[in-house]
Amino acid sequence: MEKDLVLFNKLATLLLQKEKEEPVAPIIPPDEMYTSIDISLEDAPASDAFFEETLEKLVLSTPRTASNQFFNQLFGGRISKATLGDLLAVLLNNSMYTYKVAGPQVGIEKEILHKICNLVGYGKDNDGTFAPGGSMSNYMAMLMARDACNSRIKNEGVQQKMTLYTSKESHYSIPKNATFIGVGREQVRYIPTDSYGRMIPEKLEEQIKEDVSLGFQPFFVNATAGTTVLGAFDELPPLSAICKRHNLWLHVDGAYCGGVIFSAKYKHLVAGIALSDSFSVNAHKMLGTPLSCSIIVTQHKKHLHDSFSNDASYLYQTDGDDYNLGKTSIQCGRRNDALKLWTLWKSVGSQGLEKIVDHQFDLADVARDYIKSNSDYTLYSFDDSISICFNYKNIPAQTLCTALYENSELMVGFGAFNDTEFVRLVTINSGNSKEDILDFFKVLENFVDNNLAFQKLDVLNGIH
Amino acid sequence: MEKDLVLFNKLATLLLQKEKEEPVAPIIPPDEMYTSIDISLEDAPASDAFFEETLEKLVLSTPRTASNQFFNQLFGGRISKATLGDLLAVLLNNSMYTYKVAGPQVGIEKEILHKICNLVGYGKDNDGTFAPGGSMSNYMAMLMARDACNSRIKNEGVQQKMTLYTSKESHYSIPKNATFIGVGREQVRYIPTDSYGRMIPEKLEEQIKEDVSLGFQPFFVNATAGTTVLGAFDELPPLSAICKRHNLWLHVDGAYCGGVIFSAKYKHLVAGIALSDSFSVNAHKMLGTPLSCSIIVTQHKKHLHDSFSNDASYLYQTDGDDYNLGKTSIQCGRRNDALKLWTLWKSVGSQGLEKIVDHQFDLADVARDYIKSNSDYTLYSFDDSISICFNYKNIPAQTLCTALYENSELMVGFGAFNDTEFVRLVTINSGNSKEDILDFFKVLENFVDNNLAFQKLDVLNGIH
Repeated sequence: MEKDLVLFNKLATLLLQKEKEEPVAPIIPPDEMYTSIDISLEDAPASDAFFEETLEKLVLSTPRTASNQFFNQLFGGRISKATLGDLLAVLLNNSMYTYKVAGPQVGIEKEILHKICNLVGYGKDNDGTFAPGGSMSNYMAMLMARDACNSRIKNEGVQQKMTLYTSKESHYSIPKNATFIGVGREQVRYIPTDSYGRMIPEKLEEQIKEDVSLGFQPFFVNATAGTTVLGAFDELPPLSAICKRHNLWLHVDGAYCGGVIFSAKYKHLVAGIALSDSFSVNAHKMLGTPLSCSIIVTQHKKHLHDSFSNDASYLYQTDGDDYNLGKTSIQCGRRNDALKLWTLWKSVGSQGLEKIVDHQFDLADVARDYIKSNSDYTLYSFDDSISICFNYKNIPAQTLCTALYENSELMVGFGAFNDTEFVRLVTINSGNSKEDILDFFKVLENFVDNNLAFQKLDVLNGIH
Repeated sequence: MEKDLVLFNKLATLLLQKEKEEPVAPIIPPDEMYTSIDISLEDAPASDAFFEETLEKLVLSTPRTASNQFFNQLFGGRISKATLGDLLAVLLNNSMYTYKVAGPQVGIEKEILHKICNLVGYGKDNDGTFAPGGSMSNYMAMLMARDACNSRIKNEGVQQKMTLYTSKESHYSIPKNATFIGVGREQVRYIPTDSYGRMIPEKLEEQIKEDVSLGFQPFFVNATAGTTVLGAFDELPPLSAICKRHNLWLHVDGAYCGGVIFSAKYKHLVAGIALSDSFSVNAHKMLGTPLSCSIIVTQHKKHLHDSFSNDASYLYQTDGDDYNLGKTSIQCGRRNDALKLWTLWKSVGSQGLEKIVDHQFDLADVARDYIKSNSDYTLYSFDDSISICFNYKNIPAQTLCTALYENSELMVGFGAFNDTEFVRLVTINSGNSKEDILDFFKVLENFVDNNLAFQKLDVLNGIH
């Protein structure tokens, strides 16, 4: 291992340096990938020299998600204390199913779950687990809801028409998961949103009543804390009241912005969260850990166990169920996704996590202020969001984002709300400074102004 | 990051040294965990010194799965070229859903899938993906089978009684997944096995016919390449013939021992695998990568896409579907589990992977020969398996394994077949030598002989 640790350090140093010098890696089009890097796997070993040379090329050609010009996803940047934890998780290589082979790493995971349940305000019968990504957290919530609604399904299968509810702006994993769990995509009801992208509670209740009258069995409402495009927060108290009236499971998908529970200033965005039945958050988004670090907690320990427990005498050989985490997981073998959040949290404290979250909102304010003060821009998103949605000089967002990408200028994507397409700038990299955000706009403007194609577009759009 | 890389290297060096000096970490009972290490997460940051001290304690108290005395799971050891790849994956932190943010890492994943499909012998319409663990690979196979049997289920939900088939010795994820997908645990048929732990094809066909006559809809047969306890291989040609007669999906769960496809000497154990509809293998088991590296391939690209594709215009913004791997994943954001296998495979070649696999069988031979030549032992497992199941001096396996663990002597587990419980020694750590295997027995024997409790057990059992 020692020799490959040396190689790792060499490549790490090179990558860190390149990320600063050249924040967007040179783009390789997919059809040139196999010719520009020797990715092929052969029967014979590669020589050490060729292997190292190829690996270096690969590392330096990989999109740089940690640089200060990556704004393309709902994650970005690198917080070294979290990365440290994940590097150690790789080396330690425990599987989280039993105390016997994970030892105190079980305590790490339980401590995180315990603290998050406390922050959410769940009662003493809470529990939770780590899922392989936010889609799978939502999946676990939906399964618990299905089984809580009808405990015979686990044994007998789905035998009735069940319906579930989510806003039009929610994540695509909701219908996908509905197909997976045997409920079916047609039973997903997309509730309209208000002008801020938030689910309209009255529309939800109307739809539930209609479904009941038609003989369907409603079982699940998915609220979103940070929608994928606008970063909107569904208002939880009215949704909770409706769920309680109709006996439905309320899940809060906080994959993107659930991290606001750490912030005194922004936790009002999820006011009422203690009323939910389950809540999920991706620490690899707002909290800045490496992928993936997805947490799902519930105030019904019983339902987590009912839906996911299993007997496997070959596996669970020592210690109580409370320490054998495989009993509440969708997986069997499971890598240690907890340590990276623990190293970060331990070192900076909850106060440090709060600063990380608040800084992202500060950066969003900087971006919105810039846009508002500049008439070449149109703003489409709202306050209290770290997604800043805008267009520049009416240039079609897709054209602009693709050109910025293909020219290795900036990594930023686009989205749409109510049929309007726009650039979506995500200020989730807490390593960025206000200058980095202003620089984003400078790079974009210079690119447009120096690019003949866009000048023509401007003319066509009648801007100049 | 640089400062934390220094800390990582310090802890890595310490761990590597400790693994050699003291292959089994001192055990901390669960109820002492929180007092012996300050796991707690606080509002305030920890001082650098306290953080480093606590983290060091944690790292050195974590079970050592890479040492030469870890035989407890279906993984173990550390192959440095694979670990190197996973360390780099942490630092690069790409999500594998799109080419835009994963770049040539997409090519890495596709190359691995392509090579594995070729080794299996699937035709040109093959495809595959990486799943978060072997249970989830089996899950994806079962879902494809469900949807291939009845394409309306995705939209309308499960509305019929569907049955699926697996051997009594197969993995517990099969019934667990049956609950998840809405089919139900009661619809799982456990087919009896022969004296070697292999599914009896005649019993399978009898059961299918009975289910059909009762109005059930059979859809899925799970065959196992390496059962969890004995390491047995179901015989694929007769199972395939039955599946073709009844139009059922045949999946081969090779999570544990699917790695034999790399070995000229042992691939006969999965003879007929090209006849299967899907096949899964965990590279973090026989191929020795860090957790997790689970691969599922199918010869029906269409069904992989039908069951898992999705539209998400906010996500898929550039490049074709063939390069946007999120379209065939159960997850949305997904960490890079491919790079660790690629760095290993590239550096040692397929020939090197073959040596890794063959060496595990060689070590198993060493263990079986030792047991056979020593009358204090009883052997319960069979040739061509890397699970060596035995009892020593008739000591109850559970008692022995727990005592070895609690005294930090050896990490090894137990299993059962036909109601007989035994120690299960797994020779999957290809970093081990024949001497390490012989040393395992020496440590075990010395422990028993120096332990008064076991001498009493011996007397009770009438051995001496």
